[in-house]
Amino acid sequence: MKTLFLVEKELYDGTQLRSLWAYLNHKIQGPSIVSWQGPCEVDFAHMVDGEDLNEGAAIRGSLMLHFVIELFGRDLAFAVALQRLFVAILKDELNQGAKILVKRPLVQRGDDLYWGQQKLSISIATVTPVSQMIHLAVNISNKGTPVKTCSLQDFKVSPKKLALKLMRLWSQEYDSILQATQKVRPVP
Amino acid sequence: MKTLFLVEKELYDGTQLRSLWAYLNHKIQGPSIVSWQGPCEVDFAHMVDGEDLNEGAAIRGSLMLHFVIELFGRDLAFAVALQRLFVAILKDELNQGAKILVKRPLVQRGDDLYWGQQKLSISIATVTPVSQMIHLAVNISNKGTPVKTCSLQDFKVSPKKLALKLMRLWSQEYDSILQATQKVRPVP
Amino acid sequence: MKTLFLVEKELYDGTQLRSLWAYLNHKIQGPSIVSWQGPCEVDFAHMVDGEDLNEGAAIRGSLMLHFVIELFGRDLAFAVALQRLFVAILKDELNQGAKILVKRPLVQRGDDLYWGQQKLSISIATVTPVSQMIHLAVNISNKGTPVKTCSLQDFKVSPKKLALKLMRLWSQEYDSILQATQKVRPVP
Amino acid sequence: MKTLFLVEKELYDGTQLRSLWAYLNHKIQGPSIVSWQGPCEVDFAHMVDGEDLNEGAAIRGSLMLHFVIELFGRDLAFAVALQRLFVAILKDELNQGAKILVKRPLVQRGDDLYWGQQKLSISIATVTPVSQMIHLAVNISNKGTPVKTCSLQDFKVSPKKLALKLMRLWSQEYDSILQATQKVRPVP
Amino acid sequence: MKTLFLVEKELYDGTQLRSLWAYLNHKIQGPSIVSWQGPCEVDFAHMVDGEDLNEGAAIRGSLMLHFVIELFGRDLAFAVALQRLFVAILKDELNQGAKILVKRPLVQRGDDLYWGQQKLSISIATVTPVSQMIHLAVNISNKGTPVKTCSLQDFKVSPKKLALKLMRLWSQEYDSILQATQKVRPVP
Amino acid sequence: MKTLFLVEKELYDGTQLRSLWAYLNHKIQGPSIVSWQGPCEVDFAHMVDGEDLNEGAAIRGSLMLHFVIELFGRDLAFAVALQRLFVAILKDELNQGAKILVKRPLVQRGDDLYWGQQKLSISIATVTPVSQMIHLAVNISNKGTPVKTCSLQDFKVSPKKLALKLMRLWSQEYDSILQATQKVRPVP
Repeated sequence: MKTLFLVEKELYDGTQLRSLWAYLNHKIQGPSIVSWQGPCEVDFAHMVDGEDLNEGAAIRGSLMLHFVIELFGRDLAFAVALQRLFVAILKDELNQGAKILVKRPLVQRGDDLYWGQQKLSISIATVTPVSQMIHLAVNISNKGTPVKTCSLQDFKVSPKKLALKLMRLWSQEYDSILQATQKVRPVP
Repeated sequence: MKTLFLVEKELYDGTQLRSLWAYLNHKIQGPSIVSWQGPCEVDFAHMVDGEDLNEGAAIRGSLMLHFVIELFGRDLAFAVALQRLFVAILKDELNQGAKILVKRPLVQRGDDLYWGQQKLSISIATVTPVSQMIHLAVNISNKGTPVKTCSLQDFKVSPKKLALKLMRLWSQEYDSILQATQKVRPVP
Repeated sequence: MKTLFLVEKELYDGTQLRSLWAYLNHKIQGPSIVSWQGPCEVDFAHMVDGEDLNEGAAIRGSLMLHFVIELFGRDLAFAVALQRLFVAILKDELNQGAKILVKRPLVQRGDDLYWGQQKLSISIATVTPVSQMIHLAVNISNKGTPVKTCSLQDFKVSPKKLALKLMRLWSQEYDSILQATQKVRPVP
Repeated sequence: MKTLFLVEKELYDGTQLRSLWAYLNHKIQGPSIVSWQGPCEVDFAHMVDGEDLNEGAAIRGSLMLHFVIELFGRDLAFAVALQRLFVAILKDELNQGAKILVKRPLVQRGDDLYWGQQKLSISIATVTPVSQMIHLAVNISNKGTPVKTCSLQDFKVSPKKLALKLMRLWSQEYDSILQATQKVRPVP
Repeated sequence: MKTLFLVEKELYDGTQLRSLWAYLNHKIQGPSIVSWQGPCEVDFAHMVDGEDLNEGAAIRGSLMLHFVIELFGRDLAFAVALQRLFVAILKDELNQGAKILVKRPLVQRGDDLYWGQQKLSISIATVTPVSQMIHLAVNISNKGTPVKTCSLQDFKVSPKKLALKLMRLWSQEYDSILQATQKVRPVP
Repeated sequence: MKTLFLVEKELYDGTQLRSLWAYLNHKIQGPSIVSWQGPCEVDFAHMVDGEDLNEGAAIRGSLMLHFVIELFGRDLAFAVALQRLFVAILKDELNQGAKILVKRPLVQRGDDLYWGQQKLSISIATVTPVSQMIHLAVNISNKGTPVKTCSLQDFKVSPKKLALKLMRLWSQEYDSILQATQKVRPVP
């Protein structure tokens, strides 16, 4: 899986969840993960999580660390399973790297990360007719978030360092998952 | 996903990786996870991991905690992703529950768990023509293992308690993954 | 499969054939069947049956009993096969329950039901990028239908009773189909 | 779907549920339904229905009308749905054609047909690694059956006539199902 | 696979790449190939090839021979493989049929045909939510093309004859591919 | 796709068509093509082509150039389409490289290559429960073949050079096909 960190800030408004977004905007073809920093503001028309739509939830933050993953030739169930693995790796990386989290670590519930009652991240996995996509965003700041949150600033974690490390780990994990599908004999 | 803990000890010899094993032997139909304690001894004919076959690896242990999962209507890639999620949940459960692991926690590499250089578990995900299956076994004792291992005895963890807790968490996680595939709108 | 009967009348205009319609409008998540009474008026832009589009057919009725089914993780061929099973169960239920039909029963042709030359129902099965959907509507009244029709009024059948009975039978049938995919050994 | 009626009697012993059976034994390639009369005797090693295996059921009859269907490029869920449609068509054909059944018709439960408590048929749907297969057998005689049964002799129905009619109806139904997957526009 | 040659000229503007185009416009249902002559002018909104979109390519020609293929129940990878087979058959047909090409034959690169540096054709394979589609267009004239091209006029090849021959060969090839999936036994 | 040429001669007896053959015997993991020279002798038990089984065909040759391809995560239809593309590339390579073939080129019929009435190659595409496999063998010598054949010796073509060139072209073609599935936008 290819990785790319965008140095320029960019608003995440949900339009990035569109097939070939990385290829058409950043020239990376094939399975990819792209990360950048920027505010988050997703209007109702671009919300894809039925839970958010049902609750009339707001999806926004003044500054978040974004990740957009695109896969090809898989299905939604696989994308959801990958999404949770991605969150698990993020959680471990933060819990191990931030001193403040050693005693009181982040906890994963489904595809969300919580620090006590404070929510750190938002995420969705969905499909296009030609690919599967995941968006995950981590609060860099708690400003502008619609619920009680925690953020990388609380943990004194550098967003860029985290992004680079996480994308490297994820790229290895993804390749290793594919390899695990190419080394096993069937059973009756 | 249904769960079942078998009170009687049983040897795991690889024949349990067979479609409908849980249904035909324990009358649980549909997606399921079954756990029991017993020795492990898989001969060459029942090894399905190409890596093991290539390395002429031995798969054995005098006492392990076994888990066999069966899914229906999915594919190998999904089974592999689930397998890694299952290992991640096992790891978190042990790291949080065993005092000795708080300072020096277990680390996940692919589908393996390590405590330093000591290996805790073995696992494989594969397919039958009608289902997808995962086997994971955790050392209860270090006796009889072919490599340097650690075990639940080292961590003073009750195998049965662990099994019951893990199966409960896993059953919730699995159901929640399926629900996440039934709440999202597509993107273009 | 979850079932829901809507007590309020609602126009079926084709916009109900949209992924997560039941979840976003009625909070039922997962495989579901929803039924209600209401007029039917589908304009050209919301017709999805190529046969209707080719023939410039009108799809309308002053009062029909509607059923909308949504499945997840299947394909169009499965949805079409289910659709015909659903029509078969509807046919049997009516033929057994309405005295007037004992001597001159309804006949199924593909996904249509006929009483002699009079058409009782309309139906379509299609896919969204995240699910599979079926719409079936039975005439409650013959008013406003574009072809020669029969209706539940002709058979003295209560729409609501029929809906509740049919949804119960269908929910059992659907669950039993899924179970039948989880109890069989493969052959070579 | 191609149809073939075998004039010579042949024992059904479960070995007919094998990929390409019709092609390798009767030179019919592609989706097919083959029918013949013959005894039925399936030993444990060739039973594929987990329910039968769990119950230690006997599968036998002195004379039955057999149908073996093979499909390509589909999945088990589709095969199970088709199996039930096939049983529904068989039921309707018998209920309409046999006078004795008009007042007291056959009833379908899942993939079984019953006349009161008497069982008329057995059936299974399963997969090979290259195709999907259905076996259905209808008692011609009640001799040699392990449970309380009814048979075509009870209904004074000619097995051959039934087979030819049913295969013709089924072939049309199957083709019409495939066509229904090639005439519909997607919805969002 | 059904074939149809349209005698009237028609502009190809990309709107033909839409599910059921052949069925809704020309009443041919199921897998089909339709051919006609006409100009080509695809605006940015109807371009589906990411490479073209990335390069800001122009897709146009004053007169081209068009082919639109639609398949059902397959995936994008299969459509791409078929697309290349189709181009290979076109190449062989031209290389054998046009004298000028015997010494200096057309060469295939991916899904493109070149005569030295001159490009003969454009092509794309994509999916709708209910089908898979291929468009291939061969220059009849070099007028109006945005790059250095060759054309059927250069080779003194009759577009209509070519279309009829190619569609006949392709229809046979497609049927033969499907048959090859219905004659093989699995391996372990 | 990885490529490997085996320098030692080896009999092809059909046992090479087995999942993970390249990985377990030659340590190449993932999509691969392996080539070697050796005799060919496939007994009835290892024949997988129903046509051969139906005709009681013999599959043998004293010396052939073998290719075994394994793919993962695809289906039989894709494997058959790839097989024909592979044969097309082989045909073009030979027709361009051997002088004797310029005037009287090899012709492809399905997955076979003929030089007039003389058959050059044999091939089959099939599936394992975890992968898809293709075997293609080209006569190096005409000795020992059961039908009228031609061979690389007739064309004065070096088997090893051909194998290396063909595997290089094929590896590029395969990668390019996968890329073509990761660059296209869907259509409605």
